[in-house]
Amino acid sequence: MTETVLSSAKREVVIGFERPFVMIGERINPTGRKLLAEEMARGDYNRVVADALAQVAAGAQMLDVNAGIPLADEPKILAECIKLVQETVDVPLSIDSSIVAALEAGLAAYQGKPLLNSVTGEEERLEQVLPLVKKYDCAVIAISNDETGISEDPDVRYAVAKKIVERAADHGISRANVVVDPLVMPVGAINDAGRQLTRLLRRLREELQVNTSCGASNFSFGLPNRRGLGAAFLPMMIGAGLTSAIMNPLHAEDLQAIYGADVVMGNDPNCAAWIRKYREPSADAGAGGGRREGRRRARG
Amino acid sequence: MTETVLSSAKREVVIGFERPFVMIGERINPTGRKLLAEEMARGDYNRVVADALAQVAAGAQMLDVNAGIPLADEPKILAECIKLVQETVDVPLSIDSSIVAALEAGLAAYQGKPLLNSVTGEEERLEQVLPLVKKYDCAVIAISNDETGISEDPDVRYAVAKKIVERAADHGISRANVVVDPLVMPVGAINDAGRQLTRLLRRLREELQVNTSCGASNFSFGLPNRRGLGAAFLPMMIGAGLTSAIMNPLHAEDLQAIYGADVVMGNDPNCAAWIRKYREPSADAGAGGGRREGRRRARG
Repeated sequence: MTETVLSSAKREVVIGFERPFVMIGERINPTGRKLLAEEMARGDYNRVVADALAQVAAGAQMLDVNAGIPLADEPKILAECIKLVQETVDVPLSIDSSIVAALEAGLAAYQGKPLLNSVTGEEERLEQVLPLVKKYDCAVIAISNDETGISEDPDVRYAVAKKIVERAADHGISRANVVVDPLVMPVGAINDAGRQLTRLLRRLREELQVNTSCGASNFSFGLPNRRGLGAAFLPMMIGAGLTSAIMNPLHAEDLQAIYGADVVMGNDPNCAAWIRKYREPSADAGAGGGRREGRRRARG
Repeated sequence: MTETVLSSAKREVVIGFERPFVMIGERINPTGRKLLAEEMARGDYNRVVADALAQVAAGAQMLDVNAGIPLADEPKILAECIKLVQETVDVPLSIDSSIVAALEAGLAAYQGKPLLNSVTGEEERLEQVLPLVKKYDCAVIAISNDETGISEDPDVRYAVAKKIVERAADHGISRANVVVDPLVMPVGAINDAGRQLTRLLRRLREELQVNTSCGASNFSFGLPNRRGLGAAFLPMMIGAGLTSAIMNPLHAEDLQAIYGADVVMGNDPNCAAWIRKYREPSADAGAGGGRREGRRRARG
């Protein structure tokens, strides 16, 4: 059983096959958020703080922090945001950049054991990022594409993931510290995307024995009722082996799908989290009626 | 690939691994519906007709018909309801009774190839029901319990299902005409119920190679937000191999979960059914709603 342990100064989160699914809040990211990008570029982080608080309040167990703003000093901004978010909330963070110098600045500023986002199967990236993972003893997201791009063939994506895990081992990094992103394709373009991903996730879990993460919302790209589709997609992928996702915890549908999946997977002991979240306000007094009923029936 | 073909006089429905999930409407059942039971007992079938129309309009590809009313002439009532429902809607039916004489009366009244609900692993029931399945060349739901009751051990439930499939073969009935109900336990009472069912469904699909059906709502018994939990449960079970369910098609959450699961499984070519159902109202020039959609989907 592979368990990926992340931490802040005060709190530990474990990603694992028999653990509740880990939601990594995606909101602190200026990509496509013009106002946030402008604010972050001039050192105004009020919205970053607000996004951190709101996502943790909604139930995110971790937060992704990205400072990818064109022409800005990304290493400096990312390090400042990491510090500020760690002063604001106590969940572990994912340090997210495509620039290696920014990743290193974020790592230097971080307290605890973060998730580094990300390495790919590209040679140059592997040899730049893996030494950082080793030096800072953190975990890393491994995206299953390489110099040839993103393959539509899930077996090729599996092979890329395997290569990254093996290369990590060469650097003294255990598979528990490699969280594979199998890459979610839009089903509106590739009709087989869901079925392929299911098979890939099963192989990653059963053969490569790694934890996994993804950007789930890409699946429904271009289709109507995206949240409704996500609410079916997430539980099915969790059933196939997905153990975390970078996502928006403010979407109630996704949240419900994930808490429900935890119940179905047997990872919500006594359905306690589900009952806490969804019991009727009137029953809040301390009754807990539903659960008693279920038990009575099981005995009968 | 196992395909279970059911039909009415005019329409065919196929339950199969690479087919859209088949929703069998559960509403025509007097159990727990006092008013309906009283009406049916005195030969007033207006509500039966209304329930048939509403469920097909909502998207049910088949309907279950049950006439289990204490002290009533169940064979007569069931046969009358089967005839009437077949005059009202053109979907194939599941003929549902615990009384063998009622099953036979229903079969005699039916036009096409129905699903007989049900046989169990009990010796007496096997030897009464399987000859009927053979005689009328229909399909049958096989419930995985026997004289010893319902086992909490999924391996025992698998063994019972296997015994029924083998006994059916002795009677000249192919596995394509045996749809196994693996029995859904309430997760509020048995924390491992979802995980067990997942494993059982995979074995039924991969080893026994049968189609499956279940009464899904039992899973959330006694818990709050039952529909929310069902919306996570159904896609996960479909991912594990579930190919049909006896359920209430009037619940929009369940419906959305199932249409979503069809998309993820690659069983909704070009996401056409999803787009038709959930595109923005402004794009819905023809309106007219559920029923046409349901029909289109059943043909597809």
